Formats: sequence, C-alpha cells, structure tokens
Amino acid sequence: MSAVNTGVVLARRPQGRVTTDCFRLVERPVPEPGPGDVLVRHLYLSVDPYLRGRMDAAFALEEVVPVRVVGQVTASRNPCWAEGDLVWGFGGWQEWSLVRPSAEAVGIDERLWPVDPANGPIAWAISALGMPGLTAWVGTFDLGRPQPGETVFVSAAAGAVGSLVGQFARLAGARAVGSAGSADKVAHCVDVLGYDAAFDYRTCADQRALVAALRDACPSGIDVYFDNVGGPTLEAALRCLNDGARVPVCGMISRYEETSDPGVKGLINLLAKRATMTGFSIYDHLHRLPAWLPRMAELVRSGKVVYHQETWQGIDSVPEAFVSMLAGGNLGKRVVQVGDDPTLPG
Amino acid sequence: MSAVNTGVVLARRPQGRVTTDCFRLVERPVPEPGPGDVLVRHLYLSVDPYLRGRMDAAFALEEVVPVRVVGQVTASRNPCWAEGDLVWGFGGWQEWSLVRPSAEAVGIDERLWPVDPANGPIAWAISALGMPGLTAWVGTFDLGRPQPGETVFVSAAAGAVGSLVGQFARLAGARAVGSAGSADKVAHCVDVLGYDAAFDYRTCADQRALVAALRDACPSGIDVYFDNVGGPTLEAALRCLNDGARVPVCGMISRYEETSDPGVKGLINLLAKRATMTGFSIYDHLHRLPAWLPRMAELVRSGKVVYHQETWQGIDSVPEAFVSMLAGGNLGKRVVQVGDDPTLPG
Repeated sequence: MSAVNTGVVLARRPQGRVTTDCFRLVERPVPEPGPGDVLVRHLYLSVDPYLRGRMDAAFALEEVVPVRVVGQVTASRNPCWAEGDLVWGFGGWQEWSLVRPSAEAVGIDERLWPVDPANGPIAWAISALGMPGLTAWVGTFDLGRPQPGETVFVSAAAGAVGSLVGQFARLAGARAVGSAGSADKVAHCVDVLGYDAAFDYRTCADQRALVAALRDACPSGIDVYFDNVGGPTLEAALRCLNDGARVPVCGMISRYEETSDPGVKGLINLLAKRATMTGFSIYDHLHRLPAWLPRMAELVRSGKVVYHQETWQGIDSVPEAFVSMLAGGNLGKRVVQVGDDPTLPG
Repeated sequence: MSAVNTGVVLARRPQGRVTTDCFRLVERPVPEPGPGDVLVRHLYLSVDPYLRGRMDAAFALEEVVPVRVVGQVTASRNPCWAEGDLVWGFGGWQEWSLVRPSAEAVGIDERLWPVDPANGPIAWAISALGMPGLTAWVGTFDLGRPQPGETVFVSAAAGAVGSLVGQFARLAGARAVGSAGSADKVAHCVDVLGYDAAFDYRTCADQRALVAALRDACPSGIDVYFDNVGGPTLEAALRCLNDGARVPVCGMISRYEETSDPGVKGLINLLAKRATMTGFSIYDHLHRLPAWLPRMAELVRSGKVVYHQETWQGIDSVPEAFVSMLAGGNLGKRVVQVGDDPTLPG
C-alpha cells in the first residue's frame, strides 16, 4: 500500500508472440477523487487471452492495459458507493483507479459493480462468478443448447471458460469432451472437472492424428463444439460435426499470435451438416448478470461446479503472468493479486 | 415419345472440373407399373449445381443421376394418382420413371407431389415454385431475417436461387446487392431483378479488388450474406460484416470442383462481429412447401417477383447443360425439356 500507483502499460505492439518487453511498469501518483468519483484500491487483476487481440491495434500505447479488476472503495464522493465497498469493474493493470460511475449506477453499471462475499471468494467476481462464467453459460446454454445424450466438445477445456463449459454440458445431461495442451490439464479435466473424455492436442503429430484423437473421444460425433481456439482444432471439429450441430465461437486463441491467417479448411461441413457457427461477445449479454449470478453462485456453493484459479502476486508479475498464460501455462483462471484481500483470514 | 427410356448415367467420377464424358446416355425399356406404382412421363428435368458435390462419392456409377423432374402420370395402379396428373418428384435424368408413392402420399410426399398449372408454368415446380424457390425463401427470411434498411448481399445473384434472394431482400425493405460472373448477369440483376447494386467478380483482379468492389457496393456494410459460392467471395464478405450479421450458407459452388480445400480466411470476423453462419438444406424444410407455395405463386403472378428460366431441349443435351451451367453459363434456372408440355399451346 503506497501513495504510488504502479501500472502496466503497453510499451510496444507485439509482433506475433507477445513477450514481456511489450510492457513497462510505470509509477504514477494515486489519483484524488473529484465530485462523483470513487477511488478504488485494486485487489485482483484479470489476465485474459482476449487481451492479446486488442494489443494489435485497439489498445493505446503507453496507456495502462484496461482489464477487469476486483477492488475496494477507499474514498467515495458518489452517493451510490461508500468506503469499504467491495467492487469490480474495468480498473486496468494498476493498483488504483478512479471511477466515475454514471448517475444511475446502483449495481448495474459497466464500470462498477458490487461484489458480495457471500457468493464465494471475491476474486471469483472476475472469473467463475464474472465474465468468464457468464461467457461459458451463454455460449453453452444459449448458443450450444446441449441436449441429454448429446456430445459437447470444448477446446482450452481446462481454461477459465472451458473448465466451466464441460461442467455445464454435464449438468445438461450431455457427454463432455475436452482438449487441452498438457497431460496435467487433461488429468485435471477428467479427474477434477468430470469430463467424460479429454485429450492432449500437443501429442497429435499432425492434423490426421488430431482428427483421430477427436473421433476417438467423440464416437457419436459432436453436437456442440465450443470453440476457444480456432485453427487446427476447429478444422478437426468441423469434420466430426453431427447434423444440426452448434458451434459457439468464444475465442480463437490459436489465431491471436499469428501474423497471417492460414484459413480454416472444411467449412463446407457447415453446409453438409446444417450446422450453425456463431461468434459471440459477452458484452451483448451483460444485462444477464444480475439474474444469472445467484444461480451460478449456488452451483459453486453446492459443489455442483468446481473452479480452479491461479493467483499470482504483485503488479510486477503481470507481464509474465500474461505472456506465460498465452503460451498455455495456466490451469483454469489466472489472476494477479495486488492488494490484501479483506475477506481472507489475515 | 418412344417406348425406349433414355437416361443419363454417371459413367465416371469427375476429377476437378466436370466434363461431358463423365456421363453416358443409356437406353432402357420403359418400365411396367406393378401394383401401387405410378408411371410418369418426364417433361422437364432439373440441372443443379449441388449435384456436382454428390458426384464425388454419393451418386452410384452407372446409375441414372437422381434429380427432380416435372412429369405427367401416364399409367397409375395407385389410388392417389390418376392418368393425366401433373406431378413433380425425384425422377432422375431420364425420360420416364416408375414411382411407388407411400400409401399416405396425398400431396405431401418426398417422391411425388402434384403440380397445379394455375400457379404458373408447370416447369417452375422445379424452380421458382419448387426447391430453389423454397431454398431462397428459407435462407432469406428464416435465417437471414433482413430488416428494413439493412444490406443483403448474395453471390450467384442471377442464379436459380440467388435471383430470388435479391428480390426477397427488397420485399423485406432491405438493400439488395449481388455478385455474378458476367456483365450480362450484372445487368440482369440490376435491370430485371431490381438489385440496388451488383458487380462482376470476374473483373476483380485479386482479393483486394474483390473486397474493394464489395465495399463499394455495400457502403453500410453487410447485414446478411447469402452464400452460394464459398471461397474468395465468402472471405470478402466476412471482412465486410456488420455486428450481428447473419450468413446463411446455401452452397459453396466455388468449392465443388476443387480437389483440395484452400481454407477460408477471416473467420475470426464471426467472433469480432458476433455473426452467425448457418449451413442449411432444404430437405429439413420440405414440410413448409404446402403453406409456402400459394404465397410464392401469388408473388410471381402479381409480378412482385420475376423469374428467369432457361429451357434446353432433349435428353441428350443434359450433360452439356450441366457442365456449362457449372462453368457459369446459365442465367437463372436451367432445365431440360424432354417431353411435350400439355399446358403450353401446341
């Protein structure tokens, strides 16, 4: 806790694979709240694969990378928020942020939302009980619509979103199949998350082996493919679709660090199988959060859904936490803790 | 009219581009109807791009190519059908066929349907008032769902299906934009079919020019892309999609004659634009036909929808009619007449 606000800015645009020297730590003074402002001390910062795509052009250079955070209000000049409130919002990769919530913001605001510790660990407001959780929910139930006995395949199956997709598929009575990038992740999928089958795509020597592994894991074909990665895994899944299959596209991680687009083969399977592929963004579904949150919290509390989160420590670990996550180093959701969590025992 | 039934069989599987020597004419005796059978004299045979895909494997060698036909019952041993009835169904590239409709078949049967001359030229039962028409309808209204002021782009815009898609888009209050493969087709799109804009993709030197032509024709972006061709045109359309765009995939003609799949670039636009791409087959929508047909017939009768059909003559012209259509030689729907149409003035 210092009067200095350390942040991580985008120092240069990554070319292909992102490296830690694309970022720089900057020290700035902790801002002073003006009328209507809320000063938030950050506790947990999110690191997400989707950020990589925005580093190519959307994010400004020399500015703090905008990400969701969990924090605590330390000073408020806004009637909607009081000192001590636990909140989450778009605070960025830094230790403090100043938020000016809109006048109508009593709980439902894109910039600042309340966090209720009764729902679970407060850090989960940016994972299972936040955007990754709602993303998995909308993609699985609204777009995938798995039916009992169907097969749901998800890539990045042990990740922040995928680890929930497999469990949601099982809740719907479907068979859950996952692919992931290490033996540990595959074991986690089957032993902890309850997947019916999982395989390590990195052990597949070529596309033929990948398709064979997928067919092996999905002997009745694929009814829902929840795509987190695009690329060869998407191509393999397209070849295994059943009639009327649904393909929610949540991300294309395999594409984010490529400098040219090799194209996706086998798209004609959409036609042959009368299948639907739908890109979606959780931004279009934020209004669902208040109604969804209690249901999701109950699933987690009751143990029907489990969640794994990795917590890194300190603002200076952010670049490495992000870079190594994009290389597949994470299991479940990765966050960086930058302040003492008041809900945890000392 | 002979007691010989001349048919066109698949003599060998095409490698890449189909050629007329992939087919052979065969002469067989006109079959005798047994109990429950209906003997149909064919009048019009359909030639369709989708047949090309099935020639790679699905269709049997040395058998008559199965296509939809319009015909007339010349002998019936089935209580549902009488001599003289005008019908359509899956008769194949031949002059006669024997049909054994299911017992329940009173109008709704995959194999034999009645044709009412009051709806329009009977040949249209395999075009505007048949599967191509219903295909355009379902793809446009059910999957594309154009809204007033939106932009609908369709490839193969002067073809059997596309020529209706553009007109349906206009009926919905949308802007209709088409691409086609010759100056004549483009003129037909704008002057006859009422497209707001159309362009000749063959004049585009490269992908960059194709995208430029498309952007030029769609200054407000694309809300619905009705895909008949796949390939470079699909790639260009993906780059011009608006948020929430719909991409019904009806066919991928550009892919049918390629021996390897170059892949589709830019699929990440589905994600960025929260767009939906849906392959569909009219087989899943056949139940719609009875309710749809009177509405469609009224649109044609009233002149709100126009339709262009090319009629070739004689069973021996079928191979060339098919091969040259796949090379883009057709304007609108192409059929081959193989018998005297009793509804036309002598």
